[in-house]
Amino acid sequence: MGYGSKDIKNIVKEILEEKKDIGGIKNIYFVGCGGSLGALYPAKTFVERESQVLRSAWINSNEFVHSTPKDFGENSIICLACHKGNTPETIKAARLGKEKGAAVIILTWLEESEIIEFGDYIIHYTFDASPDHLAGDIDYAGEKTQCALLVAVELVAQTEGYANYDKFYEALGMISNIIRNARTHVAARAEAFAEEYQNDSVIYTMGSGAAYGAAYMESICIFMEMQWLDSSSIHTGEFFHGPFEVTDANRPFMIQISEGSTRELDERALTFLKTYAKRIEVLDAKELGLSTIDASVVDYFNHALFNNVYPIYNHALAVKREHPLTTRRYMWKVEY
Amino acid sequence: MGYGSKDIKNIVKEILEEKKDIGGIKNIYFVGCGGSLGALYPAKTFVERESQVLRSAWINSNEFVHSTPKDFGENSIICLACHKGNTPETIKAARLGKEKGAAVIILTWLEESEIIEFGDYIIHYTFDASPDHLAGDIDYAGEKTQCALLVAVELVAQTEGYANYDKFYEALGMISNIIRNARTHVAARAEAFAEEYQNDSVIYTMGSGAAYGAAYMESICIFMEMQWLDSSSIHTGEFFHGPFEVTDANRPFMIQISEGSTRELDERALTFLKTYAKRIEVLDAKELGLSTIDASVVDYFNHALFNNVYPIYNHALAVKREHPLTTRRYMWKVEY
Repeated sequence: MGYGSKDIKNIVKEILEEKKDIGGIKNIYFVGCGGSLGALYPAKTFVERESQVLRSAWINSNEFVHSTPKDFGENSIICLACHKGNTPETIKAARLGKEKGAAVIILTWLEESEIIEFGDYIIHYTFDASPDHLAGDIDYAGEKTQCALLVAVELVAQTEGYANYDKFYEALGMISNIIRNARTHVAARAEAFAEEYQNDSVIYTMGSGAAYGAAYMESICIFMEMQWLDSSSIHTGEFFHGPFEVTDANRPFMIQISEGSTRELDERALTFLKTYAKRIEVLDAKELGLSTIDASVVDYFNHALFNNVYPIYNHALAVKREHPLTTRRYMWKVEY
Repeated sequence: MGYGSKDIKNIVKEILEEKKDIGGIKNIYFVGCGGSLGALYPAKTFVERESQVLRSAWINSNEFVHSTPKDFGENSIICLACHKGNTPETIKAARLGKEKGAAVIILTWLEESEIIEFGDYIIHYTFDASPDHLAGDIDYAGEKTQCALLVAVELVAQTEGYANYDKFYEALGMISNIIRNARTHVAARAEAFAEEYQNDSVIYTMGSGAAYGAAYMESICIFMEMQWLDSSSIHTGEFFHGPFEVTDANRPFMIQISEGSTRELDERALTFLKTYAKRIEVLDAKELGLSTIDASVVDYFNHALFNNVYPIYNHALAVKREHPLTTRRYMWKVEY
């Protein structure tokens, strides 16, 4: 029992076959904690925007267990991400899925772990396990974000149909090279970023659309968790309705400019920042090569690009601040 | 054309009657910007957790217009909040609703405004318009958050049925008194809060479940917008998967302890904070009187309670910091 991203088409087919006589699949829940939840954000957005019939939500594992949607049951898929398979809240969510008769898909990295017994389908994703994720030699199309997206794409395609299906797989075939080139492209500016922001105590991230999850992950997993900096991930559309009042010449913003439907939101925020902020780091998906992907599906690939460009910045910042990304004060060290 | 919260049952009935021959209502979108979006969070959570069939999402107005869900059309309700009826992005979302044949419900405060022509149903909610919202003499059951919730409750009840319907209305009849008592109850501690945190540059808010929107609003509309403080609203279930690494004896956290299904998440975060943080302000819904509401519906009333207790703290903090809540540097002052 172990699958890779290339098996997802058949996994979904098998689930639909199995559920055929009891009404099929009516909803899909994307559940996880922290970075594992963030990585599922594009898949959640895909179902929200592209499906006509599937109910869906994106919920922290512990909240899902304590406040479970009423329709969660044998007509459900729960798609969980759990990196090492040992997060107690996510294990509980998987177990709940088993108990309720849902199809349980677990995205995980390790071959063996505690969570595996609660999954119907264990998908082992690719992951750059090198120090600070710098090796860059993996198949990025097989990462957890893309695996979750494929679950969503296949589910929509095999039930109600998805017009851009071929374009999606075409893009998937292009993403690894785009990411590799982008990582090389930002090497020098990442060093300059680290030099500039090494003494700041707060750094905001910004983004929109299906890529918002990447801004969320960078804020909570890197700046807060791994650098102990104050941070928040600000949605570029929400920025003008409150958060923008903190803007001044000193506060640093790291802003994602997505390719696709919500680019205008990001550009509007950037225009404001260029006028009233002075310290801005721009990750522009277009400049980073994403516009070679077809416009009909590009929205869903911004996350993978940003999420894999950030590590170049993160490593440079950690070195300059002499605060290794592996340093923790609480995680894995104390009871909580 | 102007309705109040008491008309919502009939509004939903009329929409369902009108849509009967074209397949009924299949989805409901909660759309707004900033605080107006935050106020819709409990309604979104209600549909997500209680409905078996309705598709739903909670989306910033500008993102909704640029990245519209594919199923948005004549089988849709769009429920928008727009306080003064002049937010351009929300007006565009309402206009899009009209163009697509959706039933457009607009929650607003003013009698007349730009947005009104794009709504099928204009619901005028109650609002404490006194300086710093201190008067406390309004019917809190008629506020925008409760109006949106009623749209959700009536929609679910009148289509698939909602078992706790009577309990919900019973709670609605209790919420005003609970809020009024709670506001009096925190008066002294709000002064102490202001004294303690007047010189801080960052304050985090925390919460979970249907009440998370209240933590979001306090963070972006008060701390960031009205006090120019760094802030983020941390989900108490997500806290342990990244954000908690910023915890130390100095960083202030203002944490909501909800009554209902996600209380355990909040209590877990509070236990951690009590051990490793020293500066914590606790808003406990149980202590503030919410537990008189039936457990089957209490989840959805935490938001109204917290959202109306915050102003007591906000006023005290603004006075102590000599930074009036009305002060802006960009909003309404510059082009953006």
